[in-house]
Amino acid sequence: MVQSDLRDVKAVLFDVFGTVVDFRSTIKKEGAVWNSEKELDIDWGAFADAWRAQYHPNMQRVMSGELEWNNLDSLHKMALSSLLERWGVKKHFSEKEIEVLNQVWHRLDPWSDSVHGLEQIKEHFTISPLSNGNMSLLTNMAKQSGLPWDVILSPELIKSYKPDPKVYYMAADYLGLNPHQIMMTACHQYDLQAAQKLGFRTGYVMRPFEFGYEHIPDLTPLQEYDITAYDLVDLSEQLRRRSL
Amino acid sequence: MVQSDLRDVKAVLFDVFGTVVDFRSTIKKEGAVWNSEKELDIDWGAFADAWRAQYHPNMQRVMSGELEWNNLDSLHKMALSSLLERWGVKKHFSEKEIEVLNQVWHRLDPWSDSVHGLEQIKEHFTISPLSNGNMSLLTNMAKQSGLPWDVILSPELIKSYKPDPKVYYMAADYLGLNPHQIMMTACHQYDLQAAQKLGFRTGYVMRPFEFGYEHIPDLTPLQEYDITAYDLVDLSEQLRRRSL
Repeated sequence: MVQSDLRDVKAVLFDVFGTVVDFRSTIKKEGAVWNSEKELDIDWGAFADAWRAQYHPNMQRVMSGELEWNNLDSLHKMALSSLLERWGVKKHFSEKEIEVLNQVWHRLDPWSDSVHGLEQIKEHFTISPLSNGNMSLLTNMAKQSGLPWDVILSPELIKSYKPDPKVYYMAADYLGLNPHQIMMTACHQYDLQAAQKLGFRTGYVMRPFEFGYEHIPDLTPLQEYDITAYDLVDLSEQLRRRSL
Repeated sequence: MVQSDLRDVKAVLFDVFGTVVDFRSTIKKEGAVWNSEKELDIDWGAFADAWRAQYHPNMQRVMSGELEWNNLDSLHKMALSSLLERWGVKKHFSEKEIEVLNQVWHRLDPWSDSVHGLEQIKEHFTISPLSNGNMSLLTNMAKQSGLPWDVILSPELIKSYKPDPKVYYMAADYLGLNPHQIMMTACHQYDLQAAQKLGFRTGYVMRPFEFGYEHIPDLTPLQEYDITAYDLVDLSEQLRRRSL
């Protein structure tokens, strides 16, 4: 039964892409600048969707051993190069510009509630991302957007990706805590399900606009989580109430 | 010649024990409370010195392979147990109290300039500890003392200790930077010498009172560093001037 009190929770881990930051809007915003500078008419919302769609299959290739270890920057770069090619627009970008474009994932804007919600949660708990992003990506993003992490933990530290159980255990180990003292927070249920199976507490945050206003995913909880929240401020308030 | 400008520096790494925090005063302060609670008359300044003196030999035993991997909390605990025994006071402490005592390294007070200096440096650079402390120790200390790290890097991530060159390279790798874009900062010259040999920039911070007011070590620079500063606020100002 997951509706127990949460008094022993000491740390909260956060998925980042989709849960804390809005990748689609940021890519659209930067894309509009490229379009205008280069007189292109790329649909950057659709481009962002196609780019993100290569995320799971490419990680899968690493985890199956088909592809050697590559961190997320490197997987993003592979996907970006092949997409620019396939869309017939690669000729408009220099190698240097493709690198700048790839680094957009280091500059993603937070959802409007994220910084305030994290600051509130940080008052009572240790907060860290546990995102598949690599260490430098998460560090640069935090600095750029003011995400007030206490510490940054990435599966890159053990050359793996979520939902590998080793990733969640690694986080518990480096925090010096047991799984039941840690809440994993995400808008993606596969991530929460993996953590819950290992004894972590779970916080489900709904992000209906992760894929844009026209593509609202089914947000129905597939199982019971310790907290279900509509944003990070709501999560903070529920967590506070339940942990007192 | 190290007196070049520092315009390509993007990140600053900090040794912590002695450089950012004052372990001796904190151990004395907490020790006074134990003395009063338990009616003991332990000289906690001398105890702190003896405890710290086991740091290098114990790390050496790990690095030589004589002892299996143990993180710093664990090395501190070994040293603490044997010291309490040797000083004939172990009988006054329960196992639980020895654990609390061992965790004093998670609660060390910063020198008076440290938080302000780090905040200033953080405005222009990515800042991280690169201390032999383990991840949970550095995370708890930062939270307790308001050390505003952007990211926390520890040799524990690769099960090693400074001055192993792999530790400094690990930090560069996770920051996504080259050694010449990173300044290692410490009050211990062996640490700076190790980093400088690998191409890192170096900042030497003098901490005359690391071992108390009666034991001022020889602070003479043994070689030329990019910056020599008398505290972290001074380091911040020199770095700012030299990197513009």
